[in-house]
Amino acid sequence: MYATRWLEDVTVGDRFETPGYTFTEGEIVDFAFRYDPQPFHIDRAFAEGESIYGSLIASGFHTLVVCFRLVHMTGYFVPSNIGGRGLDELRWLKAVRPGDTLRVEAEIVAARPSTSRPDRGDVTVAWAVSNQHGETVMTARLNHVIARRPA
Amino acid sequence: MYATRWLEDVTVGDRFETPGYTFTEGEIVDFAFRYDPQPFHIDRAFAEGESIYGSLIASGFHTLVVCFRLVHMTGYFVPSNIGGRGLDELRWLKAVRPGDTLRVEAEIVAARPSTSRPDRGDVTVAWAVSNQHGETVMTARLNHVIARRPA
Repeated sequence: MYATRWLEDVTVGDRFETPGYTFTEGEIVDFAFRYDPQPFHIDRAFAEGESIYGSLIASGFHTLVVCFRLVHMTGYFVPSNIGGRGLDELRWLKAVRPGDTLRVEAEIVAARPSTSRPDRGDVTVAWAVSNQHGETVMTARLNHVIARRPA
Repeated sequence: MYATRWLEDVTVGDRFETPGYTFTEGEIVDFAFRYDPQPFHIDRAFAEGESIYGSLIASGFHTLVVCFRLVHMTGYFVPSNIGGRGLDELRWLKAVRPGDTLRVEAEIVAARPSTSRPDRGDVTVAWAVSNQHGETVMTARLNHVIARRPA
């Protein structure tokens, strides 16, 4: 969807957005059964009858990894992303339920060349993840290592 | 492995640790093919021959979700964990390679009752994730919502 951005193409304030992804009940239960098997993620009867959520909800980690895949799919940092340093200020703000469709709006909030390695730099991207009602369900800041354009 | 901790059982400074988990090549490639399909996670020939890592490495998101599952497996916050607010200061410090075994040392670094909801509170847990050589590969702070013991 986007042309690759190498380090020298990145400017603070640049924005991009991802395609959407619809969370199905099957995918929510399957992910959670492996990585986050709490009953409000894997047991519909419990989730509807006894949990504080009133329905199954996606694991917050599931939301996170789907959003990373959506960002990858834009091609914005493919293949210029050569690693990740970390993640800050991740906030799960609203529950994600079966049938919800999420997309990520991303903004470059910091970009600085490496002082020790001239072929790369650190780029921080702020994500705002919204559902089909325009509600923000998650925010985060991801720290990428981005390569300069190869000679 | 541990008895459930409800909110009133939690004290800042408490520590616990998880079982270990061995990252296999199959699991690394499978997770990444779905959520983080960068070539140094899914293509051994590229990873060994052309990447800066010299071998396949696990997606940092894979490391993160496995660590959450390991923390869950301890039983420390089962079933007292009723949600997650967020994650801060996640740092991927060293590559995780096929055959590496990770475990999490966790410490309670903050615990405060909710002012609006007397049945729960916020608990922050700092993770230090180490491999079989004792090297720290990841650190993070996870913000849990923990219930008080039911009446």
